[in-house]
Amino acid sequence: MLRARDAVRGVLDNPSAFNHKYPMTETKKIYKPRPVTGFPEWLPDVRMVEQQWFDHIRRVFESYGFCSIETPSVEELDVLRAKGEVDKEIYCLERLHKDESDSKDARLALHFDQTVPLARYVAQHFNDLVFPFKRYQMQRVWRGERPQAGRFREFYQCDIDVINVDNLPLHFDAELPAIMWEILSALPGMEGEKIQIRVSNKKILMGLIDGHLNDEGDQINFFRLIDKIHKEGLELLLCFLSEKNINIYLINFLKSVFSKKSYAFSELDSLIVGTGIAYSDSYKAGINELKFILQSTAHLPLGSVVADLSIVRGLDYYTGTVYETVFTENPGYGSICSGGRYDDLASGYINKNLPGVGMSIGFSRLFSYLKEKGKLPVGRQSAADILVVLPSKDRQEQAAETARTLRARGMNVEMYHRDAKIKNQMAYAEKKGIPYVWFPPFEAGQAHEVKDMKTGTQSAADPSVWTIPGT
Amino acid sequence: MLRARDAVRGVLDNPSAFNHKYPMTETKKIYKPRPVTGFPEWLPDVRMVEQQWFDHIRRVFESYGFCSIETPSVEELDVLRAKGEVDKEIYCLERLHKDESDSKDARLALHFDQTVPLARYVAQHFNDLVFPFKRYQMQRVWRGERPQAGRFREFYQCDIDVINVDNLPLHFDAELPAIMWEILSALPGMEGEKIQIRVSNKKILMGLIDGHLNDEGDQINFFRLIDKIHKEGLELLLCFLSEKNINIYLINFLKSVFSKKSYAFSELDSLIVGTGIAYSDSYKAGINELKFILQSTAHLPLGSVVADLSIVRGLDYYTGTVYETVFTENPGYGSICSGGRYDDLASGYINKNLPGVGMSIGFSRLFSYLKEKGKLPVGRQSAADILVVLPSKDRQEQAAETARTLRARGMNVEMYHRDAKIKNQMAYAEKKGIPYVWFPPFEAGQAHEVKDMKTGTQSAADPSVWTIPGT
Repeated sequence: MLRARDAVRGVLDNPSAFNHKYPMTETKKIYKPRPVTGFPEWLPDVRMVEQQWFDHIRRVFESYGFCSIETPSVEELDVLRAKGEVDKEIYCLERLHKDESDSKDARLALHFDQTVPLARYVAQHFNDLVFPFKRYQMQRVWRGERPQAGRFREFYQCDIDVINVDNLPLHFDAELPAIMWEILSALPGMEGEKIQIRVSNKKILMGLIDGHLNDEGDQINFFRLIDKIHKEGLELLLCFLSEKNINIYLINFLKSVFSKKSYAFSELDSLIVGTGIAYSDSYKAGINELKFILQSTAHLPLGSVVADLSIVRGLDYYTGTVYETVFTENPGYGSICSGGRYDDLASGYINKNLPGVGMSIGFSRLFSYLKEKGKLPVGRQSAADILVVLPSKDRQEQAAETARTLRARGMNVEMYHRDAKIKNQMAYAEKKGIPYVWFPPFEAGQAHEVKDMKTGTQSAADPSVWTIPGT
Repeated sequence: MLRARDAVRGVLDNPSAFNHKYPMTETKKIYKPRPVTGFPEWLPDVRMVEQQWFDHIRRVFESYGFCSIETPSVEELDVLRAKGEVDKEIYCLERLHKDESDSKDARLALHFDQTVPLARYVAQHFNDLVFPFKRYQMQRVWRGERPQAGRFREFYQCDIDVINVDNLPLHFDAELPAIMWEILSALPGMEGEKIQIRVSNKKILMGLIDGHLNDEGDQINFFRLIDKIHKEGLELLLCFLSEKNINIYLINFLKSVFSKKSYAFSELDSLIVGTGIAYSDSYKAGINELKFILQSTAHLPLGSVVADLSIVRGLDYYTGTVYETVFTENPGYGSICSGGRYDDLASGYINKNLPGVGMSIGFSRLFSYLKEKGKLPVGRQSAADILVVLPSKDRQEQAAETARTLRARGMNVEMYHRDAKIKNQMAYAEKKGIPYVWFPPFEAGQAHEVKDMKTGTQSAADPSVWTIPGT
């Protein structure tokens, strides 16, 4: 018996042996909740639209044969840093009650994009994947920004990438913007928005500065300054070029090229003809690849995908095609869907040559933008098609049976469980935006009836055959 | 010009002004990736089954009129601790390069369940919600456990809860296990598994110990020791009760009650008759509530929902109905779906009385269990129904047009973009588990053909009318 008693004490002295939760404390302190800046959260009606967005994006991704993957929210800090990323925006994880042993473990941090985790995933599971590996990924990512209006610290991105071993057909560079155009132009709420996918190829500019800017750092700065044109204008770039003693013909050529927002397919070939400007093979290769993409997306409405030679993306790991997507009427909002081709995705993790091409929708940023503009089709607060009324307390079982019958036939059916006035039950359906209210018989022998809350029409109906009008 | 030059330098000296990413460093160091213990990650074929699970669970939740919400991954640490939770399993967030200003902000931590965030959400958005508020939530949660085999540190939970103001009909206590039974019994891979939802009501035992165990701490320990019966046996509990001088009749009664695994509806009334054991009104109320649940779930197959008076849940915030769900043939694995009724969800955050009832599926734990047992219907690596073959380089556009036609008709269609031998293209479809391979005409005037990869049958087909057999 003593042993058992000790055991009781042993268990009771270690509350976590029972459960991870302590009892509520007796003092009832009210902690007024407030939103955490940068971590968006929606009410049910907005969340319903968000779900429609995810469903739509997933449907289109899958219709092109992309598979879904998810990676953990965390990676080892060394993995996140392996690509030389700036780390000041990384959130590290720390156990609240860490002990000595924690310091022996690898430090974990929340991922800040889905590209680094993809690279790690492909390297780690290389032997189990079929190439070309086509995956989509729709997860939250985190940036440890200082709280700031309009900046998200947690947000969704929707990425597609295609990775292959050694080489990857250029057709994928053309398929990706077609997929993204199909998605973006049909998102609920985007009907009135004109968007344009702007494409370029980094080889074009590389082919022009070959022999002029040979220092790698200078090249990186060149592309960075081009990336800033949309925000800062051309002046900084021109100043930089003349500082580097680039000849005036090339400077003027670049100036005119960057000022033109969109090149037609036929204009690309003749672009440099007669200018006397020297270029390397890279220039020609870039022009041809860009032409191929314009040609392969010609089935889309005119102006959906255009050539814009000022698109370079700030990220130096892009080596060929680069994409940005803007609202035609509000280009200053910046890109809502970007990406490009990279020569070697997982070079930091595996000794294989894995070229890829990818695009990413800034989901939360785009969603919030349309929400702020009042463009989202926000309406119902519930997925229920029908509210089954409780006629009276003693007809509970019949109401339940009615709900089961309708539900078994594929409808979303909510029951009103409280024995309340019918008026109140209908007000509940109204408030939640439930489109139909169903009245089981109030007395034996009566018929079922269903009311269309929009039109107000009420009519007799049989739960085993009735269908939602228009379905 | 000087000003512009300074500006160039200003921008270039602050790389983050360009983009959040630095260039890749020149030294190519291979960082061999490895899995992070406790953070599960699936290959595409397993992920496809996981998606089917989420789709199924969502479909059933919505068919009962529950709406979706998502909350941020983090809460303020004070919110997470407001309910007196043990905090050593909490992961805090810390910016890698934190500065002085960080210490002024509220500390953020990853949520460890979806109940605390729900309480905060309801309190925060109280005026914008329609009650009874019926929500489902399927998100990742985190526990900062020491790495340990089989323990997850990141995992999915699928919760439903109903919250109302002041009081909540008992019918919801009966609806929840019916929903969960419908979900669990029909998850892909669960066909061969027998499960049972075990229900009790904490009022029953409260009504028996009233007047015997008056100290709140003793009551909590009483319930905790009952919660341990399944793992530790009865002895610890009996020892505790005799130490507290509970009379031997009550001890023996409890012993017999806890030993019986399942009570029929008709047995509950007569349980205490003739024992001479005193009980308070709470006992009777608990028995009646439990009977109501058994009665209201009688439409489910016999044995789906049973009364088991040893179910108490370790969490003291449950005040009435409590649920656990076990594999009938492997009860030792523990509960895969649990929950209960609580009197006052958001008492820590708002001055309202908000009773609720909820259940939660331990999604990742259940999914991994079936995966380990080899029960998941893992097959295809791709959502593509059809692979459109590239007959030759010059027939690219016709292949693309074929894919678009099939896709517009609702099928998931992947194109093979490389001009490879047909044999290799088919091997690719085989490896990804794509069920149909489509052959556009190899020459003008020829017909399209489609091959069923399972049967090997190949026949002429028209992309504008062909449908997947059986759909």
